[in-house]
Amino acid sequence: MSTIFSKIIAKEIPADIVYEDDLVLAFRDIAPQAPVHILITPKKEIPTANDVEAADEAVLGRLFTTATQIARDEGIAKQGYRLIVNCNEDGGQEVFHLHMHILGGRSLGPMLAKK
Amino acid sequence: MSTIFSKIIAKEIPADIVYEDDLVLAFRDIAPQAPVHILITPKKEIPTANDVEAADEAVLGRLFTTATQIARDEGIAKQGYRLIVNCNEDGGQEVFHLHMHILGGRSLGPMLAKK
Repeated sequence: MSTIFSKIIAKEIPADIVYEDDLVLAFRDIAPQAPVHILITPKKEIPTANDVEAADEAVLGRLFTTATQIARDEGIAKQGYRLIVNCNEDGGQEVFHLHMHILGGRSLGPMLAKK
Repeated sequence: MSTIFSKIIAKEIPADIVYEDDLVLAFRDIAPQAPVHILITPKKEIPTANDVEAADEAVLGRLFTTATQIARDEGIAKQGYRLIVNCNEDGGQEVFHLHMHILGGRSLGPMLAKK
């Protein structure tokens, strides 16, 4: 059940990688919705947020601290940014390998679009 | 520099608390933007996502696993939901005590409103 993200993590297909360590990989979204739009994913194959376990807390914490480090590296930390994890259909999840969006570089407006 | 969230954590002012443990507290947003709108906050006073440190990874992981447990408890896990952390002005952060929004109970649409 591997996704395109597993292939990016395995370096089988290219991506604009901005950060990598033993637990996580971060790369630019190919269809950016803001001036800065980067995805951070655990290397472990976790399909959705529903599939995380207590044992994953270390990698989930790393996901978070990596996001904030990337925001600094991208020069958007002070002005601000938004971190988003989408789960399943109502959340609009598109790739079923858990990932966090970092969005910034402009005022992002309300959290949700009008219905 | 304490915020209203510190007062909720200290039980000095009431909130509709849905989960609490040694590291985090979760309570319903008083101005919900979706049928389910819950905030999870670390008990530790961390003003923004920029202020997290490597030593905070455990509590940040707990924030994440707590969110997914709450989604299950609220009956929105299968249909889906969105987890959001806003940082500073561009992100639309309103309370300067780090928190994660859990939003669900309806199709949430695109990640960002149109500019």
